[in-house]
Amino acid sequence: MTIDSAEAANAAIREASPALHEALSPLGRRALFPQDIPFQAAQARGKRYNGTIGQITDGRGGALALPSLAAALSGLPDAARNRALLYSPVEGVPELRRLWREWQRRFGVGDGPGLATLPVVTAGLTHSLAVAADLFGGEGRVVAVPRPFWGNYRQAFALRTGARMVSEPAYGEGRRWNPRAIEEALAGAGLAPGEPAVAIVNVPSNPGGYSPTPEEREELVASLVRVAEERPLVVLCDDAYAGLVFEEGIPARSPFWDLQGRHPNLVPVKVDGITKELAFFGGRVGFLTFPFETGSAVEAAIESKVKCMVRASIGSPVAASQVVALQALESGRAPEEVEALRRVLAARHRALQEALAICDPALLEPLPVNSGCFALLALGTEAREAGLTAEQVRRHLLEVWDTGLVAVGEEYLRIAHCSVAEEDLPELVRRLERGVEELVRDGAGV
Amino acid sequence: MTIDSAEAANAAIREASPALHEALSPLGRRALFPQDIPFQAAQARGKRYNGTIGQITDGRGGALALPSLAAALSGLPDAARNRALLYSPVEGVPELRRLWREWQRRFGVGDGPGLATLPVVTAGLTHSLAVAADLFGGEGRVVAVPRPFWGNYRQAFALRTGARMVSEPAYGEGRRWNPRAIEEALAGAGLAPGEPAVAIVNVPSNPGGYSPTPEEREELVASLVRVAEERPLVVLCDDAYAGLVFEEGIPARSPFWDLQGRHPNLVPVKVDGITKELAFFGGRVGFLTFPFETGSAVEAAIESKVKCMVRASIGSPVAASQVVALQALESGRAPEEVEALRRVLAARHRALQEALAICDPALLEPLPVNSGCFALLALGTEAREAGLTAEQVRRHLLEVWDTGLVAVGEEYLRIAHCSVAEEDLPELVRRLERGVEELVRDGAGV
Repeated sequence: MTIDSAEAANAAIREASPALHEALSPLGRRALFPQDIPFQAAQARGKRYNGTIGQITDGRGGALALPSLAAALSGLPDAARNRALLYSPVEGVPELRRLWREWQRRFGVGDGPGLATLPVVTAGLTHSLAVAADLFGGEGRVVAVPRPFWGNYRQAFALRTGARMVSEPAYGEGRRWNPRAIEEALAGAGLAPGEPAVAIVNVPSNPGGYSPTPEEREELVASLVRVAEERPLVVLCDDAYAGLVFEEGIPARSPFWDLQGRHPNLVPVKVDGITKELAFFGGRVGFLTFPFETGSAVEAAIESKVKCMVRASIGSPVAASQVVALQALESGRAPEEVEALRRVLAARHRALQEALAICDPALLEPLPVNSGCFALLALGTEAREAGLTAEQVRRHLLEVWDTGLVAVGEEYLRIAHCSVAEEDLPELVRRLERGVEELVRDGAGV
Repeated sequence: MTIDSAEAANAAIREASPALHEALSPLGRRALFPQDIPFQAAQARGKRYNGTIGQITDGRGGALALPSLAAALSGLPDAARNRALLYSPVEGVPELRRLWREWQRRFGVGDGPGLATLPVVTAGLTHSLAVAADLFGGEGRVVAVPRPFWGNYRQAFALRTGARMVSEPAYGEGRRWNPRAIEEALAGAGLAPGEPAVAIVNVPSNPGGYSPTPEEREELVASLVRVAEERPLVVLCDDAYAGLVFEEGIPARSPFWDLQGRHPNLVPVKVDGITKELAFFGGRVGFLTFPFETGSAVEAAIESKVKCMVRASIGSPVAASQVVALQALESGRAPEEVEALRRVLAARHRALQEALAICDPALLEPLPVNSGCFALLALGTEAREAGLTAEQVRRHLLEVWDTGLVAVGEEYLRIAHCSVAEEDLPELVRRLERGVEELVRDGAGV
């Protein structure tokens, strides 16, 4: 289906989802995949004489590669190597898009309608967020996210587009995860009646390493439905760490599926990528997926807008990494290989929890964690009373204890167990505890 | 050198180049690489215990890859494969940056001072343009580019940032290349006195396939210096097709080198990539380079801003493609392999010129071409008088002649000889000529 004007695209979106249309930024309203070279090249595919694309080939679709460069890709079958060397379609390699669609459903779709457009490929999960920020952010648009949150949300939304981040604590009473943080943040944001807003739901979370229980997930959904009763709400489901769940009874499926069909004003958008899900950090392949049927007019309209932003920002997504990821998905072995990786991380998670359990809680208070790549610790009462900041602890650990951790805000430290060997975790925690203890004792925070 | 506030970065830029500082967009002024995870991870490199980065490793810097995915990268040596799987530094792989710096100088630096920062890696040439658009574009900023030009400039600058494109014909009297097109476009743009502007110089050009002669190049430089006498002018040198020069006496070096040190208000920025230069279209690795000394404070300031936009838009650049490109550059064979490719294209260029020389100029007027991947044709007088548009010709060729070309604006057709076999070019041109002839005869344009 071809949508040939921004007006037609906007009308198709309004028809299917007035709320999503309402939430489009001015740039989102303007965006339309232009009818220039990739568009014209797509129309010329398969023609006997095809002089459309500015890439160097043998004239029959074969890459004319530098031998020294092609040799580095010799692990790929010939046809795949050829594709790796040449431009990807702007929307992504078709087989990868289809297989990723299946991959997204591997934990089921819950009780909802299970609607999803064919994923459009981006240059990694951050790029998916940046494209979403272009389409739904913009000057003054309120974006709610529980804190602490991944700092780069701020760059993607606020710095780049002028959106306004609002936040409330992700952990409430007794350091328990708070499913109403987004609702609370929006309640205090001074929004006009009916003004659209954006929310980011990141499960498993970064830096928290937390996924809600079934009851908490229902509370989250109910809370976002209450918001949707007041205004259009686009919920970006940042599923970066999808599948990395380590405790029994914690659902692994994306909230994207649970948020569908709950309220006309509530539009979840799935943001995911091969980065963590296939452990290909250097690959930079992400996806954007919307809760609409494949083959629908609204899919064509949204896809045109997403492709426009991909074209405008990066030209086309990386073919080489898509082809490499496709090898893994087509092999049929990805599920068991990913499960083996999950077990490695589950063992580290347990080792880390054991080490943290014997820490002095007056120095460090572990927050609840059951999934993902991280454990998050708050400074304990003694450390806070001593005036310590997380940044002071971080620097002290670097300088004195040969140990690197990430400081998040004033109060939190994040341990990435995904990049520490299991046997090193007890010693890492011991150094952290000793470091905090020294700073408290020496009054370094005062 | 660490720059720890946007104010400090802006001051360092103003100190080295008041014009470049003047030309920063509001977003460009705000941009600063944040002191969050990649910043903290960089400080923790080499520590005995390093729990900073959210990527899955064995705890000693080794990737824990899916075997099916790693197999696709088995053409890489072990250490390189490991790097391909893990995150790249946000600024790019250090060895690639250093070798690209040498590569950029392979045709010499002309008579100028030869200044260049260490190139910062992006997600391909378009991404370099988009980052430049973020830093120097923005609402109302005038961007001058001779027409016809690559349509995606419009998306990167106007659609995304609200900049205003202005243009004058790239070909003047007798279809000769016009070195003053940018000056003419800016003269008619209604700019306030001293208001900064941006220009794009694309040599060899797309869709034109043209590189100026030494005399024309001097005229171009002199023309841009005249503009710089009136206002700060950032000149983005889009060197996508660098090195693909097919005729004697046509300089292959980037105008970036010639535009340095000519006027304090004239700041060239080099925009290039491996896409065409190493024929790795699916790789998506580009670079941004500024005319300042490596190790200088202004380099640190600009690098921080570029990295900020890279981080905000794509997280980090693709490691896999950087590593693959590095294999080619480190092999020492890239120069001769690229030269072999250039000779293939030179032969196609000649075949195409011969075929076009016997076309009826009343139907198709070839524009001057000596380099790059394309030939550009204008509709001839008979075709124009018949009211034909390039788009009509394009559709007719697709439908009737099993032939795909690109329509550029109302008047031009682009032949990408880079993707057509040499022996097919005469027949492709014959079909094009026949197609135009049919449309003229049938009065299809009326």
